[in-house]
Amino acid sequence: MERYTIGIDLGGTNIKAGVLNARRQLLCKASRPTGAQRPWQAVADDMAALVLELIKQAGVDRRACAGVGVGCPGTIDAAAGRVLYSNNLKGWVDVPLAEHIGSALGLPVRLSNDANCAALGECLAGAARDCGSAVLLTLGTGVGGGVVWNGRVIEGGPGGMELGHTMLISEGEPCTCGRRGCVEAYCSATALIREAVRAARARPDSLLNTLCRGDLSQMDGKIPFDAAQAGDAAAGAVVERYLRHLGEAVVDMVNIFRPQVVLLSGGVCAQGEVLTAPLTEYVRRYAFASPHLEPPPVRIAMLGSDAGLIGAGCLVDCR
Amino acid sequence: MERYTIGIDLGGTNIKAGVLNARRQLLCKASRPTGAQRPWQAVADDMAALVLELIKQAGVDRRACAGVGVGCPGTIDAAAGRVLYSNNLKGWVDVPLAEHIGSALGLPVRLSNDANCAALGECLAGAARDCGSAVLLTLGTGVGGGVVWNGRVIEGGPGGMELGHTMLISEGEPCTCGRRGCVEAYCSATALIREAVRAARARPDSLLNTLCRGDLSQMDGKIPFDAAQAGDAAAGAVVERYLRHLGEAVVDMVNIFRPQVVLLSGGVCAQGEVLTAPLTEYVRRYAFASPHLEPPPVRIAMLGSDAGLIGAGCLVDCR
Repeated sequence: MERYTIGIDLGGTNIKAGVLNARRQLLCKASRPTGAQRPWQAVADDMAALVLELIKQAGVDRRACAGVGVGCPGTIDAAAGRVLYSNNLKGWVDVPLAEHIGSALGLPVRLSNDANCAALGECLAGAARDCGSAVLLTLGTGVGGGVVWNGRVIEGGPGGMELGHTMLISEGEPCTCGRRGCVEAYCSATALIREAVRAARARPDSLLNTLCRGDLSQMDGKIPFDAAQAGDAAAGAVVERYLRHLGEAVVDMVNIFRPQVVLLSGGVCAQGEVLTAPLTEYVRRYAFASPHLEPPPVRIAMLGSDAGLIGAGCLVDCR
Repeated sequence: MERYTIGIDLGGTNIKAGVLNARRQLLCKASRPTGAQRPWQAVADDMAALVLELIKQAGVDRRACAGVGVGCPGTIDAAAGRVLYSNNLKGWVDVPLAEHIGSALGLPVRLSNDANCAALGECLAGAARDCGSAVLLTLGTGVGGGVVWNGRVIEGGPGGMELGHTMLISEGEPCTCGRRGCVEAYCSATALIREAVRAARARPDSLLNTLCRGDLSQMDGKIPFDAAQAGDAAAGAVVERYLRHLGEAVVDMVNIFRPQVVLLSGGVCAQGEVLTAPLTEYVRRYAFASPHLEPPPVRIAMLGSDAGLIGAGCLVDCR
């Protein structure tokens, strides 16, 4: 009887779930709205119901299901299976999520932060599946991340691995966490857009304005790269600074963990080699003791929005 | 028959070694000059000879000796037991140190970075012995560190855990690693002295000059604290900035690892609560999701210069 696991990616908007086989292939998936304004028990009951629905949909014998992994945004106590706090799930304070779903299903349930799950998914079944160790940085509204070592998530203590909330510029830009100058405040898509808007305002003749059709609220993470590629000097400076800050953050992760590869995910990563080539070179140049150690390459993650649920499914066997 | 382990702390100047009992108490220790200009094999042979001498001195049955741990400066491949490169041991490139000593002694030999060993020693037998997890930052000529989780060193890949070579101020002060703005460039004793000298030059009336007897080459890591305590404004500003930078570095470590405690070691730590009280408060205020998580306290390490060899002895059982 083949062995299966279920991965759930719990977001503020949707609950996504999928069934993985023993080779960590996604057999089928489904989703439903989170309805995050409801009591957490209602959301957890829906998660359990979605698992049962998926098991049926996949035509899998329930006894062949080894367990359920859940990736959850926010501050997680993975060892205890509890959501301590989450910005995206208002009112969730110290929620015993793993226990609740486990009781409903009669299956073991593992919990981790969603960025940790994405890192695990990419390391075991995605862009780093040739590597035992990887650091993933997700560049979105904020900057998150996860670290996988010998095929397992390094959890740290409850609330650990907030890789985006490490300092890049003391007393720099305000960060969502209350500090100033964090990696998130310079390397998120939000930060890239902020800098592009500033540059567009300072240089009304810049292509940055043209590509926004004169409406800076339409600025996105792609426009600065497009304008830079077309030779626009203001956009070129924005992109160059963004890449340097991202390079500094990546080198920090290399100097701390020395993974076999650094992965990047998030919308900005559509830029592909425009990001990875200069960043790999930056790591080669600036990582500690670089001449004596093979510096890890920087790659783009490949599982997209499935990384979290695939990684969550992998949690069952990889803790 | 009680079980013993041997710890060796290999430095650029001296080889120090000690015998630990099963309760990780240091029974006896000895040292000899490293003679680092010699071929590495000669140094390694001396390390083995020192172990035999110590076993004899301690009156321990050699069959009761479970193994030898070695803490070594520089870039270590712990899994392979090799010294890849070390600033303090010139010419050591990819040296199979564990194998060489192990063959000479007929005992298992484990190798790790010296800062990792110090962290392990403090966590198992020192200032964090009530905790399973700790981050240690050593504030000396440079800034090193180590991370212990569930009583074991988190090694990362070869050359990992260079905690002092993470960014604090992008494009800031030059760092010994070739980057600019690393934690080491702001939080080392060297950096504190640099800033105190700058402040003394800018303010000839400052007590900083008086305490150096007019010779700024005599500036040390204690004078700025003494002058600040005496009410000197220039020194006060230097100390305040140093504490803020150190606080930022400590919060970074908390946000990444969420240890139960953060330890500081090195000469600056003679300041005791003058460091730990404001830093603990800084962590309480700025660590990610601080209101929802118990923030770890900052403590001074307590094993002093024995931390490395005690931790090295602990490596034998804790890998």
